[in-house]
Amino acid sequence: MPDQLQSDNIHTLMLDIGKRARQASKALAIASAETKNTALDAMADAIFASEAEILNANAKDVARARENGITGSFIDRLELNESRVRAMAEGIRAIAALKDPVGDVIAAWDRPNGLQIERVRTPLGVIGVIYESRPNVTADAGALCLKAGNAVILRGGSDSAHSARAVHAALKTGLSAAGLPEDAIQIVPTTDRAAVGEMLAGLNGNVDVIVPRGGKSLVARVQSEARVPVFAHLEGLCHIYVDQSAELEMAKDIVVNAKMRRTGICGAAETLLIDKAAADRFALPLIEALEARGCLVRVDHDMLSLATARTEASDEDWSTEYLDAVIAVKLVDGISGAIGHIEKYSSHHTEAVIAEDPEVVARFFNEIDSAILLHNASTQFADGGEFGMGAEIGIATGKMHARGPVGVEQLTSFKYCVRGSGQTRA
Amino acid sequence: MPDQLQSDNIHTLMLDIGKRARQASKALAIASAETKNTALDAMADAIFASEAEILNANAKDVARARENGITGSFIDRLELNESRVRAMAEGIRAIAALKDPVGDVIAAWDRPNGLQIERVRTPLGVIGVIYESRPNVTADAGALCLKAGNAVILRGGSDSAHSARAVHAALKTGLSAAGLPEDAIQIVPTTDRAAVGEMLAGLNGNVDVIVPRGGKSLVARVQSEARVPVFAHLEGLCHIYVDQSAELEMAKDIVVNAKMRRTGICGAAETLLIDKAAADRFALPLIEALEARGCLVRVDHDMLSLATARTEASDEDWSTEYLDAVIAVKLVDGISGAIGHIEKYSSHHTEAVIAEDPEVVARFFNEIDSAILLHNASTQFADGGEFGMGAEIGIATGKMHARGPVGVEQLTSFKYCVRGSGQTRA
Repeated sequence: MPDQLQSDNIHTLMLDIGKRARQASKALAIASAETKNTALDAMADAIFASEAEILNANAKDVARARENGITGSFIDRLELNESRVRAMAEGIRAIAALKDPVGDVIAAWDRPNGLQIERVRTPLGVIGVIYESRPNVTADAGALCLKAGNAVILRGGSDSAHSARAVHAALKTGLSAAGLPEDAIQIVPTTDRAAVGEMLAGLNGNVDVIVPRGGKSLVARVQSEARVPVFAHLEGLCHIYVDQSAELEMAKDIVVNAKMRRTGICGAAETLLIDKAAADRFALPLIEALEARGCLVRVDHDMLSLATARTEASDEDWSTEYLDAVIAVKLVDGISGAIGHIEKYSSHHTEAVIAEDPEVVARFFNEIDSAILLHNASTQFADGGEFGMGAEIGIATGKMHARGPVGVEQLTSFKYCVRGSGQTRA
Repeated sequence: MPDQLQSDNIHTLMLDIGKRARQASKALAIASAETKNTALDAMADAIFASEAEILNANAKDVARARENGITGSFIDRLELNESRVRAMAEGIRAIAALKDPVGDVIAAWDRPNGLQIERVRTPLGVIGVIYESRPNVTADAGALCLKAGNAVILRGGSDSAHSARAVHAALKTGLSAAGLPEDAIQIVPTTDRAAVGEMLAGLNGNVDVIVPRGGKSLVARVQSEARVPVFAHLEGLCHIYVDQSAELEMAKDIVVNAKMRRTGICGAAETLLIDKAAADRFALPLIEALEARGCLVRVDHDMLSLATARTEASDEDWSTEYLDAVIAVKLVDGISGAIGHIEKYSSHHTEAVIAEDPEVVARFFNEIDSAILLHNASTQFADGGEFGMGAEIGIATGKMHARGPVGVEQLTSFKYCVRGSGQTRA
């Protein structure tokens, strides 16, 4: 097939998907909480019931990936087993158990002329999710968007195509069981990359927001090409600042946890800033605590005398998201130095301050503009579940609409409902 | 000068404006409410003090516009007089008197592990305002953005360039008086349209949102070209539905006010839908009330027998925003018919229902997805001031971030501040 013809076909196919998603979103917007929960529970049941089909489909994906020479963490993310399939179903039930955000009155006030104004949550509309080869995203994202009354268009990685289709079949069963349109959760039936381009162009106004789930290159492409709003973070270059007023034992626990609990997540700390005034007391104990857990420590030039025989950090280290057991450590001139460094290098995702001095904490909270700021707690709490939001579809570092964990509430918009008794405007 | 060279120059000029705005936004973000109010009060004083300069500058703009053959409402919007200059200054004082949104705790909750989470308002960053020849927008938009802690880049119409520069000089005086950077409110010093294109491209990430203020063609260009978020409405095709349960006298008052109080504003009603079940009782009295105020009434084909000798509405009327003393009237099958018509033709700005039946009102509020829905009140209340938000920079019909009136709160974002006592993640 000539390329142009193929690309015309994909254009037509994708516009049709968008149109059907918009149509379905209208039914979802007025569906009751009970109807949506019926669908979600039926989806979970269908995933349990089709465990064998899902595992078979997944085995095909894994075999094909292995044939293509793929190994390691990619296979780990792709591969399902019984407990992972069950976790998927349980995740959907947990989403069903969340409070329905649609119809919530976010704010209400009366005007002197008697008008009663309410700001009421509504669904956003249609959400496009573009993700890599993690079969569970099909279930998580589909369920979370539905809970918030949104239609969703899912575009998974080509390596997980069989798995995604099998999971999607279970989701459709759930929608039908509740009498909701099957187009509420659609999966893009082609692995052609042109389909992603069509989604990013907005499908004729039929995609309200795009959520990319995956590595930096996927997010970068989405952020640079999307003509619709995007909820995403390109990277999580998270900092911890240990002030001279910190309690050392607490600082050690938090720094080790923030870096080493899981090194591959976006909330993992990448740079440790230590107050110069406490360098003698804090630097070696903190470094040794990290090294005892197997962390490679790269220190700033002026720390080499304190921490001999350590690797020297280069300028590049301050802007590197290692996502590995590596940390860059620097001495800074107190809270002002910490703020200056963070404003220069941060990805505005998550930063923590370890301090007992309330003025230091106040400046850290006021002057740093990142999505999440923590005091005396690990950066690894940067997570919708840990925030009590239930499931999340990701973490956003943009400042529009959603910032920080994107949970079910962040997938909504609002409208004003105004009640009067005959008021006219003078 | 060859065109390419000129366009390179504008590119460089605009990127520099963006960079300076971002830099200024950092100082604004941590400026206290008192500092910002000192600046705003000094701006108002400076506008009073430079009334003569502002009127002289404006006289040049008006003379030039007249030379170019411009007349009517365009001149009316452009022309200043003493009372308009004073209203500008008083508008700034009113913005100073608003509650400072930055630092507000929007939500707060504790986690079982003791973490205390707060969602705190922050400025958005840098706002680009692109407007036509209304000199007052320079003052209003500059002051409102400043109040919310944002830097602003103002691009006014070429016809008001002298006026805008004179007003801007007063705003800069105010910024200096409070020790705030003058780059906090910048005015684009060229009337070349390429400068608008640069703003819409986002100035290297240094514009966070664009607000267009002006006619439909300006808004359409901004919406189609902008690579950054836009707060706007393309049109206000507002509907009123009069249900059979309505009180006729109230309906007459509201319909007449919604259409005729001011016909040129976005909240003016454009289509009147009447419940077929009450056609005999309501249609003629409503039409006659409108006509008594000088409104031209265009009726649907099946109303011609009820309202003889009226103009017949064509299909085009249902999607026409007249912004004039004209209204289209149609009979619909109760609330379901009204919802169907509105979902098909509405610009999702503002709609009103006149009814006493609570089920009808509930369906109207639940099933229609417009920014503002009113019950038994005029659509002309679609205004930030009437909502009690103080000044507004416009009304948005998009669903992301801001919807409805865009006041000082809608020009903010938020961050999470989390307080712990040594928590690490398991």
